[in-house]
Amino acid sequence: MALKIEGSKFLIAGGASLVGSHLVSGLIEKGAAEIVVYDPVLFDVTDSLGDLKNDPRVRLISGDVMKLHQLVTNMEDVDGAVNLAAYMSLGFTQNPWDAIDVNIKGHLNFLESARLNNVGKVIFASSSAVYGFGIGGGILEDTPHNIQENPPGAVAYGSSKIIGEQLCRMYKQKYDLDYFALRFSTVYGENQHHRAANALYIIETYERLVRGEPPLLFGDGSESKDFVYVGDVARGIIMALESNATDDAMNISGGLSISTKELVALITQIVGSEIEPEYIKEDGRIRLKTGVGLHYVNTKAYEVIGWRPEMPLEEGIRRLIRTLA
Amino acid sequence: MALKIEGSKFLIAGGASLVGSHLVSGLIEKGAAEIVVYDPVLFDVTDSLGDLKNDPRVRLISGDVMKLHQLVTNMEDVDGAVNLAAYMSLGFTQNPWDAIDVNIKGHLNFLESARLNNVGKVIFASSSAVYGFGIGGGILEDTPHNIQENPPGAVAYGSSKIIGEQLCRMYKQKYDLDYFALRFSTVYGENQHHRAANALYIIETYERLVRGEPPLLFGDGSESKDFVYVGDVARGIIMALESNATDDAMNISGGLSISTKELVALITQIVGSEIEPEYIKEDGRIRLKTGVGLHYVNTKAYEVIGWRPEMPLEEGIRRLIRTLA
Repeated sequence: MALKIEGSKFLIAGGASLVGSHLVSGLIEKGAAEIVVYDPVLFDVTDSLGDLKNDPRVRLISGDVMKLHQLVTNMEDVDGAVNLAAYMSLGFTQNPWDAIDVNIKGHLNFLESARLNNVGKVIFASSSAVYGFGIGGGILEDTPHNIQENPPGAVAYGSSKIIGEQLCRMYKQKYDLDYFALRFSTVYGENQHHRAANALYIIETYERLVRGEPPLLFGDGSESKDFVYVGDVARGIIMALESNATDDAMNISGGLSISTKELVALITQIVGSEIEPEYIKEDGRIRLKTGVGLHYVNTKAYEVIGWRPEMPLEEGIRRLIRTLA
Repeated sequence: MALKIEGSKFLIAGGASLVGSHLVSGLIEKGAAEIVVYDPVLFDVTDSLGDLKNDPRVRLISGDVMKLHQLVTNMEDVDGAVNLAAYMSLGFTQNPWDAIDVNIKGHLNFLESARLNNVGKVIFASSSAVYGFGIGGGILEDTPHNIQENPPGAVAYGSSKIIGEQLCRMYKQKYDLDYFALRFSTVYGENQHHRAANALYIIETYERLVRGEPPLLFGDGSESKDFVYVGDVARGIIMALESNATDDAMNISGGLSISTKELVALITQIVGSEIEPEYIKEDGRIRLKTGVGLHYVNTKAYEVIGWRPEMPLEEGIRRLIRTLA
């Protein structure tokens, strides 16, 4: 079903996050009547939500997706619900117990609450991690999940997102609950937090340059990433809510490959620095390797909901950096 | 580490199952001192364990892998532990709540209990479902997970096994807990239960023939399966416990492809019937499709632990059928 944003009520689980803050902002701009930001607020919420939390249409609930009763109560009269609540690869490594609970059982609680409250449509924040790591080239939606030679936390994270998508399919088949699973590539943007292993690289490179230290490049710098601007992601979620289409999964990505070498050069140029990068081998930290030319093809999103990314990487990085300074 | 079976103590979670009963039998034959069969015994345990439950070395605990404290208590002084407790594809479809709990959180409880009790080695019952369904040809251990066009319960089941393997890797990395993940193909054998979608096909074909009804073939009968005899599986688990090797996953399979057409002809011949099969389209039930020539290559198991399957399919099916009659 196609939702109308204007005058409607939304619940965003994990809504105090990077994507959540931009989504709240986008929903308000489009005239949403009420937005329940459902988040345990384990992190400093002012980092991401800022002034949005003072908006009378925004209701901040210290909510846990593991509490079915709490989700059910707070989803009352909700027209559309978005589940952004998740642990990522690093979280799976540090605390697999809570990561499993939140990403899988929490998502099942989310779907059950949506069903019980007759929510019109739900959006599930899936991830390009469903394809695994260590791969390169252009990735289409039917690419299988590569589980080879990746850190266990990262593989478990990707699998948790596959299960999340399948639970959506199951709720569609059993209860006709409309949904979209959106597979985000590496999301970056203003108010970026320090919990995402991939996007963190932008911040770390910037911070090293500002301190006068050389940025670090692994291997020969040919590993590549596909960044998507958080504002584009929020717009994709809203377009998926508004679309008549349902029961599908698709890439929401920048669609362009950038090597770490090019990325470091771009950030160095933006900062106005002339420091040369330092090439290093592994530093022992958990790292998600990528192949050459990695990008997630996003033509399906254009065909199905008319979405395409708009923010050029350079401008997006400038915006991110401004919030760090 | 390499375990000595003779004089050692074992715990088998989900031990009242098809594989569990053959494993208990195999461990007793090799002189195990004590075997804790840890199982909720939701099913009629006499079906699978039979007289084994009266053996003084076998201790049957009505145990739930979701109860960490109960697992921890019962794993005291255990030398080797095997986790067979799992919901399969049909269970994931019917009850995703309990399936997620048992397959993922339950397995984490199992590993944590093994760590806390300094268990020497654990074996995780993984599955060829980690490669997905709908695929054909020879499948090696590095084949990625195909998630396309399969029932959500089946995909979720396969992903739960991938997560299970990764949790093993995590416990090896963090706590040096030795493990093997064994990816079973379609297990069949004496005391076969009716809960496994794939192996059930043998039973159904047999039962139709006995009733004088034609066996059913989907499509053109070219879909293929790879059956592994439960006695071979139990022997594989014991050899993995005894092996010095660790931290690896491998196929435990028949290694041979049989088309459903050939399978039906074989069972018809064993029964001594002359009824011709009936070719049908889908019957609306959840079914796990397979491609042509599907088989899981098992040379790695031979290289790493010296295991290879021994039971010819015809003889194995005869044994299964004798327990049905």
